[in-house]
Amino acid sequence: MPPFAQGFVRDLRVRWALEEAGIPYLERLVDFEQTKSADYRAQQPFGQVPVMEENGRSLFESGAIVLHLANRSPALAPMDPHDREQMVAWIFAALNSIEPCVGNLADIDIFSKGEAWATARRPAVVKVIAGRLGELSTHMGDRDYLVANRFTAADIIMTTVLRDVPADILGGFPTLAAYRARCEARAAFKKALADQLAPFAKHASA
Amino acid sequence: MPPFAQGFVRDLRVRWALEEAGIPYLERLVDFEQTKSADYRAQQPFGQVPVMEENGRSLFESGAIVLHLANRSPALAPMDPHDREQMVAWIFAALNSIEPCVGNLADIDIFSKGEAWATARRPAVVKVIAGRLGELSTHMGDRDYLVANRFTAADIIMTTVLRDVPADILGGFPTLAAYRARCEARAAFKKALADQLAPFAKHASA
Repeated sequence: MPPFAQGFVRDLRVRWALEEAGIPYLERLVDFEQTKSADYRAQQPFGQVPVMEENGRSLFESGAIVLHLANRSPALAPMDPHDREQMVAWIFAALNSIEPCVGNLADIDIFSKGEAWATARRPAVVKVIAGRLGELSTHMGDRDYLVANRFTAADIIMTTVLRDVPADILGGFPTLAAYRARCEARAAFKKALADQLAPFAKHASA
Repeated sequence: MPPFAQGFVRDLRVRWALEEAGIPYLERLVDFEQTKSADYRAQQPFGQVPVMEENGRSLFESGAIVLHLANRSPALAPMDPHDREQMVAWIFAALNSIEPCVGNLADIDIFSKGEAWATARRPAVVKVIAGRLGELSTHMGDRDYLVANRFTAADIIMTTVLRDVPADILGGFPTLAAYRARCEARAAFKKALADQLAPFAKHASA
């Protein structure tokens, strides 16, 4: 993983959910070559991370894994059925209505930095992000968390999406910057982030 | 809705799931102005469609609505818990690992057609799509459906994502073109599509 990606890999979502739920786990690191193997593709058809193994079964897509954990831990989901459905809606909203445009800006600012098309395209992408963040900010209003006045799995997903938004853009939405900071202040987040970063530090010094 | 979008609006997913499950429903059309209202935003913070109302409660995000329906209809989901989780993983994969790059190509080919940045960017976006479709095609292999040898809610979501892929690109993956055709041949799909198109035809002739 290049330095800019360390601390932002999708397994952070799963580690965070496991920490909130108090479920112990073992990590298995994979390198890029391993993700191309038939065995790995049988678990993760697109060769991405993370994959979660449990009782001999495996599950892929961070959204699906976090939702799976939420379905079995009261630390991650409200009890009321309607609140639970709203939580699911917000997980999808974070991943499908916000993350794609944020990912497009990462393409522009990181992977295609300096290319003429990226420079030309950037203002429109920033405008789309700002629109969505404005709508999210309106929803948040005086809320501390997305759903049911409590921290849920949806906040894990949304916080990790907001962490990919450049600081100067997120700073334009103080409600969201405060929300992100509120979620990142949780002990489970700090533990998860430290645990994602530890292997990178170890390998860098090896 | 402009003509190119008719038949591709996200409520198709919900209509299709309802038809498969045999759940009757009423449609309520909204126009662009209505989606800006505070009442609508309370149901759908981003002003998108669809929203589903049920027993005085509402739910947003097509993925969340289809998953909600799958959780209560054996027509949409397998009984085995592991199979059900794989179904959820594929719903997320379709929406988060495939749809975003397909949407980027739509931006280029439809909304930004002819712009210099779009022409410059297109080959890289097509390459990303082809990579993901190749991986999906490998997963499909001899499978007729994504999960558990049967049609599930995941096939609804994936089919609607593949419908947004230009024909010349999808044609490069015969397994996927056949899969899409297999799912679109279902009576429930045809009914759902006809029901989405009917109001457009009515308004066009009014």
